[in-house]
Amino acid sequence: MELQTEANPEKETSRLEAFSDGVFAIAITLLILELKVPALIATDINSPALGKALLQQWPSYFSLVTSFFTILVMWVHHHEIFSHVRKADAWVHFANGCLLLVVTFVPYPTSVLAAYLETPAAKAAAIFFSGTFILIAICFNLVLRAAFRKKTLLPSTPESVVERSCRNYLYGPLFYSFALLGAFIDVRLCLGICTALWIYWAATAMQNTQI
Amino acid sequence: MELQTEANPEKETSRLEAFSDGVFAIAITLLILELKVPALIATDINSPALGKALLQQWPSYFSLVTSFFTILVMWVHHHEIFSHVRKADAWVHFANGCLLLVVTFVPYPTSVLAAYLETPAAKAAAIFFSGTFILIAICFNLVLRAAFRKKTLLPSTPESVVERSCRNYLYGPLFYSFALLGAFIDVRLCLGICTALWIYWAATAMQNTQI
Amino acid sequence: MELQTEANPEKETSRLEAFSDGVFAIAITLLILELKVPALIATDINSPALGKALLQQWPSYFSLVTSFFTILVMWVHHHEIFSHVRKADAWVHFANGCLLLVVTFVPYPTSVLAAYLETPAAKAAAIFFSGTFILIAICFNLVLRAAFRKKTLLPSTPESVVERSCRNYLYGPLFYSFALLGAFIDVRLCLGICTALWIYWAATAMQNTQI
Amino acid sequence: MELQTEANPEKETSRLEAFSDGVFAIAITLLILELKVPALIATDINSPALGKALLQQWPSYFSLVTSFFTILVMWVHHHEIFSHVRKADAWVHFANGCLLLVVTFVPYPTSVLAAYLETPAAKAAAIFFSGTFILIAICFNLVLRAAFRKKTLLPSTPESVVERSCRNYLYGPLFYSFALLGAFIDVRLCLGICTALWIYWAATAMQNTQI
Repeated sequence: MELQTEANPEKETSRLEAFSDGVFAIAITLLILELKVPALIATDINSPALGKALLQQWPSYFSLVTSFFTILVMWVHHHEIFSHVRKADAWVHFANGCLLLVVTFVPYPTSVLAAYLETPAAKAAAIFFSGTFILIAICFNLVLRAAFRKKTLLPSTPESVVERSCRNYLYGPLFYSFALLGAFIDVRLCLGICTALWIYWAATAMQNTQI
Repeated sequence: MELQTEANPEKETSRLEAFSDGVFAIAITLLILELKVPALIATDINSPALGKALLQQWPSYFSLVTSFFTILVMWVHHHEIFSHVRKADAWVHFANGCLLLVVTFVPYPTSVLAAYLETPAAKAAAIFFSGTFILIAICFNLVLRAAFRKKTLLPSTPESVVERSCRNYLYGPLFYSFALLGAFIDVRLCLGICTALWIYWAATAMQNTQI
Repeated sequence: MELQTEANPEKETSRLEAFSDGVFAIAITLLILELKVPALIATDINSPALGKALLQQWPSYFSLVTSFFTILVMWVHHHEIFSHVRKADAWVHFANGCLLLVVTFVPYPTSVLAAYLETPAAKAAAIFFSGTFILIAICFNLVLRAAFRKKTLLPSTPESVVERSCRNYLYGPLFYSFALLGAFIDVRLCLGICTALWIYWAATAMQNTQI
Repeated sequence: MELQTEANPEKETSRLEAFSDGVFAIAITLLILELKVPALIATDINSPALGKALLQQWPSYFSLVTSFFTILVMWVHHHEIFSHVRKADAWVHFANGCLLLVVTFVPYPTSVLAAYLETPAAKAAAIFFSGTFILIAICFNLVLRAAFRKKTLLPSTPESVVERSCRNYLYGPLFYSFALLGAFIDVRLCLGICTALWIYWAATAMQNTQI
């Protein structure tokens, strides 16, 4: 019976976690499909031209790296949350479903940003990009609130973890809103905040879990 | 021996379940590839134009969300079914193979619907879309009938679960047929039924499993 | 010590199997990307035209279904083989790597066949398609020979399984060679044999494993 | 307690390994998307023309095979490393994240190489291709250094394994630098070294692990 009590919690969310892991892993890898082989002009196919064309794709590389690490850090946080969850009930499943929907969506604003970062439409692209992350941050709060109820939480989870997580995750939508608003001043401000944020979440994840 | 009896059933379908999970997770994530970065006219590249172009893609967003949640709810039901299965024999494998085929197919009618929802060809697209879901619902019935035989069922499964499931799943093809027929009256009726249905299946899944 | 002996064999190939499962699941799902939304002529966008265009894609549907079930049956056979393997050594890894390479390749000849099935170039497409399956069948023989050596086999595997498998798998390259040669007579003969073969392998898999 | 000590280490990195496996498996399978069905001229659609067009894609096949086996061998090494790791701390996670980023990137230089291998821009493409592998080799060194610290290593790992690995992995960036420099002499030299290297790493992996 002791064994069962210990084995069950893990088992009950392992299905959900494995499926979520799959979606995270695929979404993070699909980002690469956004990169298109540069088409050189037929009269000017040579190594310097190709090298230049590859370098000119820096908006794609930047978007790719930002989205890659943002999703990766999300995945670490997702696991952090579920390491404290005993079982997933209807609300956890629904909140997690919304989160996964927005995660699979990330490659699209990433492509839009890459395509328009160096055009006069950069502002709209940056708003779309940071707006997606606001949505993800809101979904993370939903998942956390659903997962960290007495009914679904592991009894062993210290109260301090619950409190700190619930407080910390509130900063997510707030900070990404700053990024979105920053786009109205300067697109670089918006993207700078987005970059600063995944570095900040990475640090938070490491502090929380001592992984 | 007690332990073995308990451990074996899980093991015998874990291969099938893990593979199916992978296919579900990939199909749900590939939906995003349908979204194409809007190409603005060279003389009109600015933020309002891009914003407008992104908003005009609402048929894509709608199709994506509908297919995403439909597949997600299917995945929950798939696991619900296999949580009662002791071992998968030839018929279960074959029925499950047919189901996976139609699940991997979903991104295609989703793209077709997104491309033609605002054109005079919307009716055909909606028929194709809802028709795919009829096929999936039929395959789910096949899987259920194959999996819920005495030979393959866990002995611990209560008779009431078998009866209720076999009855409930019959509504699937029926309801999606209504959606398909609705397309002949109004495309919005068809898509409204499709949306209502994934919400309904979600509620069913939650009631069935108390997950 | 008893426990270790029992637990180890499973563990030692689980890495290889999980990775292979992932590749199989992704390859089978990527098949759908071959289907492109039909582009209707701007002056003729209506439901009958779209319906007709969707029906005219039957070569794509046929290629998709054939490749889907062929890969699915391969996956069942792959698991069948590895259920008898105690540990994977260098040769097993190398043979399995070659097999996975050809499995990930399948979506390409599938696309080529779909694109050219109704053109005068159908013969070349069918040869390319069935040729890929010859390669897969050869790789399966390599994997089987590598995996079914005394060194790597589970001691509990009956000699009869080894003998029957080694004999049965030899038919693979032979039968797909018939399919390829059939393409020189009639493309339909080639594709008919390919279809007959996945049905035949499905039956073999079921007989072998009583899954 | 004995059991816990033995069970825990494996558990603590299993999340990281499963996620990494997923990314490797998807990246290796996405390589196929680079292959595009050859578009024949409408007046010249016949089997010899299609056959010729398929053969003319040899740069794509070559790039695909090189990248496939390079990623596959990386995956074997990745597992080799983590089989000695007790737990993943912040540095291991960060180094592994960088590695996964470059692994998901591989399909892009592969496509670029395939597109330009037979053009005067081949040199730039080969530099881009081998340059990516230098980055991967550097990331592998980071992962190894992070994972093979006293704090994260399994106590049972022999000192000789640590020493040999740390020494062997240093050759990675060096050898791929030779490949990159080779591109300035002849593109074939660069690609020959890349091919020789995955064969060499395969041999190393086999010797290291006796897998």
